[in-house]
Amino acid sequence: MCRWMAYAGEPVFVDELLFRPCHSLIEQSRRAHEAKTGVNADGFGVGWYGERAVPGVFRDIMPAWSDENLRALAHQVRTRLFLAHVRASTGSPTSRVNCHPFSGGRWLFVHNGQIGDFARVRRRLEALVPDELYAERQGATDSELVFLLMRANGLERDPVTATRTTLATILAAMKESGANAPLRFTACFTDGETIHACRFSSDDKPPTLYCGRTEGGWLVVSEPLDTEGARWTAVPPDHWVTLKGAGPVVEPFALH
Amino acid sequence: MCRWMAYAGEPVFVDELLFRPCHSLIEQSRRAHEAKTGVNADGFGVGWYGERAVPGVFRDIMPAWSDENLRALAHQVRTRLFLAHVRASTGSPTSRVNCHPFSGGRWLFVHNGQIGDFARVRRRLEALVPDELYAERQGATDSELVFLLMRANGLERDPVTATRTTLATILAAMKESGANAPLRFTACFTDGETIHACRFSSDDKPPTLYCGRTEGGWLVVSEPLDTEGARWTAVPPDHWVTLKGAGPVVEPFALH
Amino acid sequence: MCRWMAYAGEPVFVDELLFRPCHSLIEQSRRAHEAKTGVNADGFGVGWYGERAVPGVFRDIMPAWSDENLRALAHQVRTRLFLAHVRASTGSPTSRVNCHPFSGGRWLFVHNGQIGDFARVRRRLEALVPDELYAERQGATDSELVFLLMRANGLERDPVTATRTTLATILAAMKESGANAPLRFTACFTDGETIHACRFSSDDKPPTLYCGRTEGGWLVVSEPLDTEGARWTAVPPDHWVTLKGAGPVVEPFALH
Amino acid sequence: MCRWMAYAGEPVFVDELLFRPCHSLIEQSRRAHEAKTGVNADGFGVGWYGERAVPGVFRDIMPAWSDENLRALAHQVRTRLFLAHVRASTGSPTSRVNCHPFSGGRWLFVHNGQIGDFARVRRRLEALVPDELYAERQGATDSELVFLLMRANGLERDPVTATRTTLATILAAMKESGANAPLRFTACFTDGETIHACRFSSDDKPPTLYCGRTEGGWLVVSEPLDTEGARWTAVPPDHWVTLKGAGPVVEPFALH
Repeated sequence: MCRWMAYAGEPVFVDELLFRPCHSLIEQSRRAHEAKTGVNADGFGVGWYGERAVPGVFRDIMPAWSDENLRALAHQVRTRLFLAHVRASTGSPTSRVNCHPFSGGRWLFVHNGQIGDFARVRRRLEALVPDELYAERQGATDSELVFLLMRANGLERDPVTATRTTLATILAAMKESGANAPLRFTACFTDGETIHACRFSSDDKPPTLYCGRTEGGWLVVSEPLDTEGARWTAVPPDHWVTLKGAGPVVEPFALH
Repeated sequence: MCRWMAYAGEPVFVDELLFRPCHSLIEQSRRAHEAKTGVNADGFGVGWYGERAVPGVFRDIMPAWSDENLRALAHQVRTRLFLAHVRASTGSPTSRVNCHPFSGGRWLFVHNGQIGDFARVRRRLEALVPDELYAERQGATDSELVFLLMRANGLERDPVTATRTTLATILAAMKESGANAPLRFTACFTDGETIHACRFSSDDKPPTLYCGRTEGGWLVVSEPLDTEGARWTAVPPDHWVTLKGAGPVVEPFALH
Repeated sequence: MCRWMAYAGEPVFVDELLFRPCHSLIEQSRRAHEAKTGVNADGFGVGWYGERAVPGVFRDIMPAWSDENLRALAHQVRTRLFLAHVRASTGSPTSRVNCHPFSGGRWLFVHNGQIGDFARVRRRLEALVPDELYAERQGATDSELVFLLMRANGLERDPVTATRTTLATILAAMKESGANAPLRFTACFTDGETIHACRFSSDDKPPTLYCGRTEGGWLVVSEPLDTEGARWTAVPPDHWVTLKGAGPVVEPFALH
Repeated sequence: MCRWMAYAGEPVFVDELLFRPCHSLIEQSRRAHEAKTGVNADGFGVGWYGERAVPGVFRDIMPAWSDENLRALAHQVRTRLFLAHVRASTGSPTSRVNCHPFSGGRWLFVHNGQIGDFARVRRRLEALVPDELYAERQGATDSELVFLLMRANGLERDPVTATRTTLATILAAMKESGANAPLRFTACFTDGETIHACRFSSDDKPPTLYCGRTEGGWLVVSEPLDTEGARWTAVPPDHWVTLKGAGPVVEPFALH
């Protein structure tokens, strides 16, 4: 079901946060504690903001723990905002095009969860992607599709409303299609300035979400990167996190 | 624009035909003579029929000339019918899901050509894929989509009619979408018993197609595998090849 | 530290034994029970004997559980003898050249274990590889090197003696080099006719080894493929297994 | 036989020089003009200097033209010094460990050429690698080995002497081993401050080498990146290039 992390704050070398903590995301790719699947080794990705109009994205298919390119890149890149993701497939192939983060313009997106019974509802949802975004569909994941729908629904202008609209649309489509498995959505998206994260599920099992403080910045993560409990705050189900310079703001999130 | 080959006849080790000829498909992956692009190194694939209900398929992303697994597999597999393909991408990523052959049940499909201005017409065509096949869409190529449409249009019952219907449908959708680049289609599909190949284009440049004889069987190929001219017969544009035990039958093919 | 399996008996489709059992090697790649490392996802390989003078070998770098090529190949190949391996690296990169089985002529080799402090002793051991085998060294693993030494020490003529000589040589070199970590060696090699397996360690923790019966043949495995306890016999430390048509023979094995 | 490029000067985004020129290295990976092999698609690599004690290195196995990670990385990384390489194998597998640049500490190395009859002379040369560098050998290329020998021979203190010693050593070992094919060496190495390049061959066919000027800096390349002839100066055989802030200095280079 995947694990991810997001950082915003003082410029930091990516490996300081991605590799070094005792329960880092790299460690979680092998042995996550709070995920449905402990092993998250069906590809990985990292997205970061530098000097360019678009973020950098590096995705590949090996387990995150064994990729020398990831290690080297994370050692070099210094950034004030990045996302990283380790993937546990819910069915689609291990392929770069199915790895997170997904990107569009300045936006990046990582997702932990799934659209239940996705095969049943996929075509109905793909039909809702507008023409100007349709060509960006490269893989077969529910996550990439969710991101396209969120962009179509105004992610750039109002992320909360775009998410609410998208999730409601998906739930409606699921109902019409007879898709009964739950919709789970613990996700993160950013334009390089603000990090938005959401913890939601149509059942009572939304994947976990935490906020944490680091030396020069803030983290939003699937599960704590270390055992210093005081550093981490669990985000309750049906809540939304907005992270800017002043630290994370956690608010209730509901579809209606 | 890709190169491919198909064989039917006495059981033969795949490498005898895939690697050994002086202008083999492997050699064509590096230096094709009659293709728009001489280098066909954006992935490869081979599909073969053995003892199982479905054919074997092996597809990967490296150039065909350097993949040790392909070499080893082709050395072991003995079969009375196989297809192989080396890919030159017309835009979609180099990923296993975008490599040929595509498969469905007992059928395999390889394609050399393209749907012109594919990005413009893609959604219109994907919308025509029926529910029961929609979930099989894994990549982003025009070729995979053509195969799904052909299956929807009765490939199993009547390949010529299915192809005719599919190409006409695509051309109509292209017209409606303002897609002006040509539709080129030199393709091959098989159920493991009969090989069907088609050379068609909406302009006057259909990719090349040849039939040839080998010791114990017959070949249908993008371009000759060696320089023994007498062995090879060029298939004219707008023609269809049906290959069974008795050798290839070449007939005119038109949309109307 | 890796997991492996070997089969000899009536011809069987590889996937029947590699994928289907409830605790199959594929399942062990994600969650081994008796290995030092539960996750064995640093590449995989399968080697099998067919109609050719040399066995087929297919090795790749993704986790075994997610490779569609492995699944397709295992579904097609029917063989009377095969080995398979899932890798947990002890340091060398995840690369095809570092994946098992290693092959030479008709022989295949898979290994679970390690040469302790390998970096210290590597050059001393590589210097012992004779000229005619030296060019076959392609990667950086201790396992590939052990196989080259075993071939140099007469594996083809007398596997027990070759193993004894090789392990003694390695231990001597380790001593001279000040390599203090243990030498662990639970390995399997075959010429396509007889399967040889050895469970040995310089300390008291040799990796596990089992023999088991299947419908038409016999298995030698790192750990049982299912929970039917009666089917499986643990091989004690310092023992050697020879498997031919009549079933496995287990005998004591000592260096002196 | 590979193609490579090196840049030093004002900080520049890598893609400006790696992708944008009309005959860029990426274009050369598909269609080099002055190389023995026009297609250089057996892996690629880029190494760059940033804020860290060691350079960044990104190497992978697909053709350089199709790797989205390379494209994204090159778009983000801004650096005052980088090397890039596209590989045409002379025999060793397409594997990350066999791709250039090779690195050690602050040094990077790319190579176009080969040690003739390498299989014959390999062990003799590997035996000359000192203990402290031996563990860094990960692949099977002659190039990686040359780099280890150059480091052993004092590359850090005096690159010209280290190269001279290394090439003389290799030639002597080739002679002793009966290796008769030529030694060709058009190579580049850097510590992040100075770029050193050498054009040498034991026969009269050293791979090509050019110096060129760009807006804010200097290039040393296998072949010109565009057709503006005036920008490029061919380096004669048996010459050495030293590139620092003031531009390249070209001097004769001989073994004795």
